[in-house]
Amino acid sequence: LERLGTVGIVGVGLIGGSIGLALRARGLAERVVGIGRDVRRLEDAKALGAIDEGSTEPTRGLSGADVVVVCTPVTRIVEDVATAVRAARSDALITDAGSTKRQIVEDVQWDPKARAAFVGAHPIAGSEKSGAAHARADLFERRPCVLTPTAQTPADRLERARGFWSSLGCRIVEMDPAAHDEALALTSHLPHVVAAALTASVPGPLLGLAGGAYRDGTRVAGSDPALWTGILLANRGPVLDAIDRFRRMLDALHSAIAAGDTAALEQTWKVCAAGRELFEFVEKFGQLPGEDRPPHPPFDRPPSPN
Amino acid sequence: LERLGTVGIVGVGLIGGSIGLALRARGLAERVVGIGRDVRRLEDAKALGAIDEGSTEPTRGLSGADVVVVCTPVTRIVEDVATAVRAARSDALITDAGSTKRQIVEDVQWDPKARAAFVGAHPIAGSEKSGAAHARADLFERRPCVLTPTAQTPADRLERARGFWSSLGCRIVEMDPAAHDEALALTSHLPHVVAAALTASVPGPLLGLAGGAYRDGTRVAGSDPALWTGILLANRGPVLDAIDRFRRMLDALHSAIAAGDTAALEQTWKVCAAGRELFEFVEKFGQLPGEDRPPHPPFDRPPSPN
Repeated sequence: LERLGTVGIVGVGLIGGSIGLALRARGLAERVVGIGRDVRRLEDAKALGAIDEGSTEPTRGLSGADVVVVCTPVTRIVEDVATAVRAARSDALITDAGSTKRQIVEDVQWDPKARAAFVGAHPIAGSEKSGAAHARADLFERRPCVLTPTAQTPADRLERARGFWSSLGCRIVEMDPAAHDEALALTSHLPHVVAAALTASVPGPLLGLAGGAYRDGTRVAGSDPALWTGILLANRGPVLDAIDRFRRMLDALHSAIAAGDTAALEQTWKVCAAGRELFEFVEKFGQLPGEDRPPHPPFDRPPSPN
Repeated sequence: LERLGTVGIVGVGLIGGSIGLALRARGLAERVVGIGRDVRRLEDAKALGAIDEGSTEPTRGLSGADVVVVCTPVTRIVEDVATAVRAARSDALITDAGSTKRQIVEDVQWDPKARAAFVGAHPIAGSEKSGAAHARADLFERRPCVLTPTAQTPADRLERARGFWSSLGCRIVEMDPAAHDEALALTSHLPHVVAAALTASVPGPLLGLAGGAYRDGTRVAGSDPALWTGILLANRGPVLDAIDRFRRMLDALHSAIAAGDTAALEQTWKVCAAGRELFEFVEKFGQLPGEDRPPHPPFDRPPSPN
């Protein structure tokens, strides 16, 4: 793997900070520059070793950058990509880490400069904690990173995006942006909404009687409200469909309990337990049982010409 | 604390096995006898150090027992209590570890011998894993144990039940059996139902794209189907009410997303995040912020005369 020159990270929070730590721990770049609006947070990120230097001025800070990763909230990514592509080297790769992709990729298409440099990405890694203080160099190891190239994405940028995210430890998955959003609505956004609703269902005075099921089931409800409001609204249709799907499953369980139907309830629970077992297999082996290779093309295949 | 003579554990799975390990690790009993239907599982429990000896015959195995803890599924507890009270010493304390209490306590009242020896208990500790192989001596440390005495519960048995469960590391909470079931419907049974529905909502081929929110949110869906069918049906009314409460919270989030209402959604999420923060405080300090003492009477108050 060729060593990168300057890598710019726009937004040095949990994700941006972890990218910086991973780049520096693995010696993947000559220089990591963090861009942010708050000088103190940039200083903290530098003290933590996540960036070599920080700047509140993207035009100056990103000048000469070979790669820029935009790690701001989804509501700001399109604007930050436009700024980055004009500040970085003319042959720079611009990528992002947003949890939604369809709207972002569509909006970037309207900007010819951005379109020619941008490869949408979503590393599926994170935590309910935000801020560089919780960043970890190994956050991306063995985690999927979805790339969402379009027919307009130049092949060289796609190839470099694959290389960049793999170098952080990710296994690469390539998907259509809308298909990404529909999948993530179920695998990530729905679990967040469910956790929030579960948290709000239990009155404070009863919290002393809560156990592990509540603890784990509500963890991500502690996630940043503004960040998650942005994600859920940026993926509104698929999220609403995912909630409807979940409601039908909950209704089935409700009906079996209301009917006192032992057999139906036990059968439904067995299906759920099997789903959980399948997930544990996939997490351990990176693929479904019986698959010869991961369900999505990994980085080891030759790049498609597009 | 006075050392116990023989303690009988009926059902040596995760909970029964952990009680045995805790009793033996702390030297609280002269002898721990496990009662079960499967000889091999009793031998495993003995090999793991959870019991001193095992027996498939409660009448013989529990003879001379000072304390019997019934750790079988909720559907079997009443019957096992009746057997235990006739096999153990006439002054024995009989207690249980069932996740529901109202029906069990009511049914035990019909049996005068059982009623005079029984104190319903629910140590709020556990895991989605079952079996003595997952037992841990520290499973109960700092965990709440709800005792559900009635007006008929003899004061000496209640006092001994407090002593027994505290000796395993539990903090004692005393509640009316029906109030226990209503609280646990929200704090434990609802999170289990929600986890099951969430698991079933995500199709297998997408599991490779699931992250931490799905992982944590579905963990308890791997719990034993028969065990959980029994718990949910034994607490049907409160569980259905809890699901309705959860549905209203989910509907509020659904509406805010459908309306694209940034302010409403962010505000709702903030309330949820605050709830999670409150839970973390309670878990850390064992009480709500600003409380001088735990929300429920702890073991340090004198026993009520009943």
